[in-house]
Amino acid sequence: MAMRPTIPVKPTSNVGELLEGMSKTGFQGRRLGESVDIWSRMIQDRECTIFLGLSGAMIPAGMKECLISLVENHYIDVLVSTGANIFHDLCEHFGVRHYLGHHHVDDGDLFSRGIDRIYDVFAYEEEFRSVDQRIADFAAGIAPFKGSSREFIRLAGEWAIRECADGRSLISACVRNNVPVFIPALCDSSIGIGLVMARRNGISVDVDQISDADEITRMVEGSPSTGVVYIGGGVPKNFIQQTQVIASIHDSDLGGHAYAIQYTTDAPHWGGLSGCTFEEAISWGKESVSSPRTQCFCDATIALPLVTSALHAKALKRKGKDAVSLCLPE
Amino acid sequence: MAMRPTIPVKPTSNVGELLEGMSKTGFQGRRLGESVDIWSRMIQDRECTIFLGLSGAMIPAGMKECLISLVENHYIDVLVSTGANIFHDLCEHFGVRHYLGHHHVDDGDLFSRGIDRIYDVFAYEEEFRSVDQRIADFAAGIAPFKGSSREFIRLAGEWAIRECADGRSLISACVRNNVPVFIPALCDSSIGIGLVMARRNGISVDVDQISDADEITRMVEGSPSTGVVYIGGGVPKNFIQQTQVIASIHDSDLGGHAYAIQYTTDAPHWGGLSGCTFEEAISWGKESVSSPRTQCFCDATIALPLVTSALHAKALKRKGKDAVSLCLPE
Amino acid sequence: MAMRPTIPVKPTSNVGELLEGMSKTGFQGRRLGESVDIWSRMIQDRECTIFLGLSGAMIPAGMKECLISLVENHYIDVLVSTGANIFHDLCEHFGVRHYLGHHHVDDGDLFSRGIDRIYDVFAYEEEFRSVDQRIADFAAGIAPFKGSSREFIRLAGEWAIRECADGRSLISACVRNNVPVFIPALCDSSIGIGLVMARRNGISVDVDQISDADEITRMVEGSPSTGVVYIGGGVPKNFIQQTQVIASIHDSDLGGHAYAIQYTTDAPHWGGLSGCTFEEAISWGKESVSSPRTQCFCDATIALPLVTSALHAKALKRKGKDAVSLCLPE
Amino acid sequence: MAMRPTIPVKPTSNVGELLEGMSKTGFQGRRLGESVDIWSRMIQDRECTIFLGLSGAMIPAGMKECLISLVENHYIDVLVSTGANIFHDLCEHFGVRHYLGHHHVDDGDLFSRGIDRIYDVFAYEEEFRSVDQRIADFAAGIAPFKGSSREFIRLAGEWAIRECADGRSLISACVRNNVPVFIPALCDSSIGIGLVMARRNGISVDVDQISDADEITRMVEGSPSTGVVYIGGGVPKNFIQQTQVIASIHDSDLGGHAYAIQYTTDAPHWGGLSGCTFEEAISWGKESVSSPRTQCFCDATIALPLVTSALHAKALKRKGKDAVSLCLPE
Repeated sequence: MAMRPTIPVKPTSNVGELLEGMSKTGFQGRRLGESVDIWSRMIQDRECTIFLGLSGAMIPAGMKECLISLVENHYIDVLVSTGANIFHDLCEHFGVRHYLGHHHVDDGDLFSRGIDRIYDVFAYEEEFRSVDQRIADFAAGIAPFKGSSREFIRLAGEWAIRECADGRSLISACVRNNVPVFIPALCDSSIGIGLVMARRNGISVDVDQISDADEITRMVEGSPSTGVVYIGGGVPKNFIQQTQVIASIHDSDLGGHAYAIQYTTDAPHWGGLSGCTFEEAISWGKESVSSPRTQCFCDATIALPLVTSALHAKALKRKGKDAVSLCLPE
Repeated sequence: MAMRPTIPVKPTSNVGELLEGMSKTGFQGRRLGESVDIWSRMIQDRECTIFLGLSGAMIPAGMKECLISLVENHYIDVLVSTGANIFHDLCEHFGVRHYLGHHHVDDGDLFSRGIDRIYDVFAYEEEFRSVDQRIADFAAGIAPFKGSSREFIRLAGEWAIRECADGRSLISACVRNNVPVFIPALCDSSIGIGLVMARRNGISVDVDQISDADEITRMVEGSPSTGVVYIGGGVPKNFIQQTQVIASIHDSDLGGHAYAIQYTTDAPHWGGLSGCTFEEAISWGKESVSSPRTQCFCDATIALPLVTSALHAKALKRKGKDAVSLCLPE
Repeated sequence: MAMRPTIPVKPTSNVGELLEGMSKTGFQGRRLGESVDIWSRMIQDRECTIFLGLSGAMIPAGMKECLISLVENHYIDVLVSTGANIFHDLCEHFGVRHYLGHHHVDDGDLFSRGIDRIYDVFAYEEEFRSVDQRIADFAAGIAPFKGSSREFIRLAGEWAIRECADGRSLISACVRNNVPVFIPALCDSSIGIGLVMARRNGISVDVDQISDADEITRMVEGSPSTGVVYIGGGVPKNFIQQTQVIASIHDSDLGGHAYAIQYTTDAPHWGGLSGCTFEEAISWGKESVSSPRTQCFCDATIALPLVTSALHAKALKRKGKDAVSLCLPE
Repeated sequence: MAMRPTIPVKPTSNVGELLEGMSKTGFQGRRLGESVDIWSRMIQDRECTIFLGLSGAMIPAGMKECLISLVENHYIDVLVSTGANIFHDLCEHFGVRHYLGHHHVDDGDLFSRGIDRIYDVFAYEEEFRSVDQRIADFAAGIAPFKGSSREFIRLAGEWAIRECADGRSLISACVRNNVPVFIPALCDSSIGIGLVMARRNGISVDVDQISDADEITRMVEGSPSTGVVYIGGGVPKNFIQQTQVIASIHDSDLGGHAYAIQYTTDAPHWGGLSGCTFEEAISWGKESVSSPRTQCFCDATIALPLVTSALHAKALKRKGKDAVSLCLPE
């Protein structure tokens, strides 16, 4: 075995250069650097469909522009998110802001002042309530509706653009760039609050979670190759991972995702799916044995701006996928 | 301020005594000890409805008997779970076993031998596949079905008991003890795999997630007081937490859950809902300002056996709640 | 490969039974259970010298009685500690107490009231200062002194017993049971503060750290077999681990520690010695390839009371080692 | 209260800009961004003496150039390190390399091939042994020696430069830039191994840890203002923190460090000093109530290259401190 020496990384003002330098070092710095290379390879593999799993309060934490940049450059093809991220994104679309707060405060006092806290980010409860109501009204407007969360979110995105054409949001970027958005646990969020309000008013709206699992699996079945990037874990990670298990029922040669990246603050030794390694996923057939893969233990509010900037700087050209190549139902 | 001194805990063979001793010490040992006291108070508060949120691979990790004990003693009234836990529980009900494995192995080799790994627990993929198929068949048997995950899981539990009367499982214990089970992200699990298989065969089954959010909120609205216990975080935690937000739309005096416990390996500083403090929840109105509450940072496979044993040893008597007092629809 | 199934652990009021039950489950609960078995084997191996590495604020956190129990039952032969633990232990010996506090407080207010905080434990700064001064006086009393921290701590323990015969402390238990105590970074603690005070007063006291490394290595060299138990990581872990590296300079057949247990809240993926696996240690020759070993990720304030209680309940008889068998210099 | 909104950070190829952008977001990304601003203020405060605490295997992980850059730009005045970092740095000075490895390997196999593993970094045991021997020889060359670790390390650095003038190392950079280096637990490292070898050969070398605590405290006592930066925790953090406690014995108006930054993967809720907050430190008088401070939860192999690059890009001019202003003994 010819061993390659590590190369101490030198300070440099260029993000891409710095991350490349870090990929020759050790520990999580190396992993972060390697992830840029793996993502770049996904982007350059024309046959690959790239799924992004998004969890954690990424929109409140100010990650919107990084995510929009990924969508606009077609560095992801499909988004699977928690409901909360898209709710907060809709809020921002409609001009509701998040604020610089602090985590060490008197929360009883915040409550009495109508301020909600997300670690060190603040927001006004009343503004969130008004968006809940807008979502309930939107649901009434599309009723009767039955379909997957992907269809629901696409309609919601189109509505948001109509309501507020200059709103800056991830959801509007996804609509404009034909990036389907799945929210497998939609009612576990403030969007679900709006839907319960609608339902209690007799509005006929059904978000069909079986369709979600069916549709996303068809994408995997129809794609020559798949790559996955997970911001955190949770439902988005498991939901994307399990597509390979479902798909292999009918085609046992699929062999798992071809590329894999996760940025997480969880750890494998707690035994949960959120923190499990891609090696564990290989045993299930969710990942290919030979996949380029890395799991980087780092807060996504650090990893995402860095990696997005490094990808951006490479200026890799990639075409978005259309509905047909994503096997979307008409 | 009169400060009370810590009292160094002495070794003792009695779990209850030991945990009580730990509640006079510091750090997470104290938290674990305090949680027994808080849970006991919930149990003894006749007006309190107790919600358990369950995430992480608790059934594969051998926590079934502890959970069954909680259900049979009516130390919880409502269960909100990930789908995976109930899937693995169904497997165990039907005699499928989990095995003592190791986390540091060659996963490619496991894959080729048909063994799935969950950290240090092994299982046979083929056996899981056969249960997927059984679930698909069950779905066909109840079609056409439309209802909440609670209704679906109750039917599944009754079916499992019919199929295998001596199966030992959490789901059958819940059915027998009238403990409703919600799985807000049902299709994000192998149960979802069975449902996709059924759907692709033209079976009409719909699991209505808006009903889930509506039903569980009615329970909170109809209960004089609520207590929450979270094993891990994820969707189960958020789903139970948000009930207070929905309920307060119509009744702004609700004031949040009255008791709260979480066992978690996450941390507040990552900003996610899974690891956030109950203090943060106060700012949102999800927790009462004055609630007895504790967040204990500990793997649930350690916390749960200990706390369950300590509760068990107290032999507190508590009656289960019926469908009417839980505000269940007929 | 015949796989052994997991066995779900049942609630029981007996700590030993519970931990044995946990050893048949998964994740960190299993590890905790396994550690009891491994420690029992060390205890029953007459040739084994057992080293305990102690870090983290274990005395302030109320772990004193558990540690004393280990010493009095001869379940450890040698203690390597941070200075802080022995300082706080001396404080308790002299009647200074720690108090039940809270971590979410106004620390500026505590400061103005002379209260020091250790997470959720409080103490009076003035009382600590008085013990600093007592240590400086003690140092003056033994001057001129030059020797290892082991000798210094033994003298300090004897002095503490003289000063306060009924003081209850780990240090006095160690003196009474001939358990040598090393503090490799003695001046990195309030004991060091006392020593600086003495030095500035012209007192001639030298704590010779090279002797520490020399003496403890001789113990390893002279012992047929060694076992290690780490409460946390830090200097105590590395200091014990490196003995095998030094010892192997003269005897390359030593082959590493024969048994190993760590309770830690660190993680391997950060790359530090505190959280590294015993597998990594094997590559260095610090651990035997075939050693029974387990690394349990758990706060020691939970693990220690449990494991100590389980060991206590087994009532294993073990004789302490004398100075000759520990290769102590005269 | 006028709340300032968060501003979603935009991808940019400039590290400094990116980190400044991150300081307007949430969670640990914000903290990382803020730390650059706080460090810059330390640098620009002419009265401030800046202490860097260094723990974790930073040299094996390829952080050497970042650390050298901090020294050469005088962005730190005093270094307190674990022994391991300086040992590995000496190795690199003499041409011994670290290699890109993997954490998921057969460590028994590595052992049999003479390869030591540090998470995902490899090195040759034999090469380390040869440096141990060189250190023993160096010790023989300076005998009889008695002094602080600072004096010992300065002599070692001068020797390393003499032996290998073009060696690139942190230690040689510190010597050349008059940055004193303390290693409070020197014998807890391979440098200690060399010293034990020397001692066993009858060489008279004493590294006086009380002098370490005395000398560094004099620096704090003599400085109008102090700032601290911690890479990890461990002995270096506590050793620097406690200087304020010692110093306040004679001058109760000192009021704690004036600036504070920590990059750590530990967490406050475990109760240890490594992970404790700077708020906790305020209760002890170690930090000023009003100090600009931030604790960023991030692997240092990510944080250090980023922050160093951002500081570098600012091109802040700062003069180094001489021995007199550092209150060094002659």
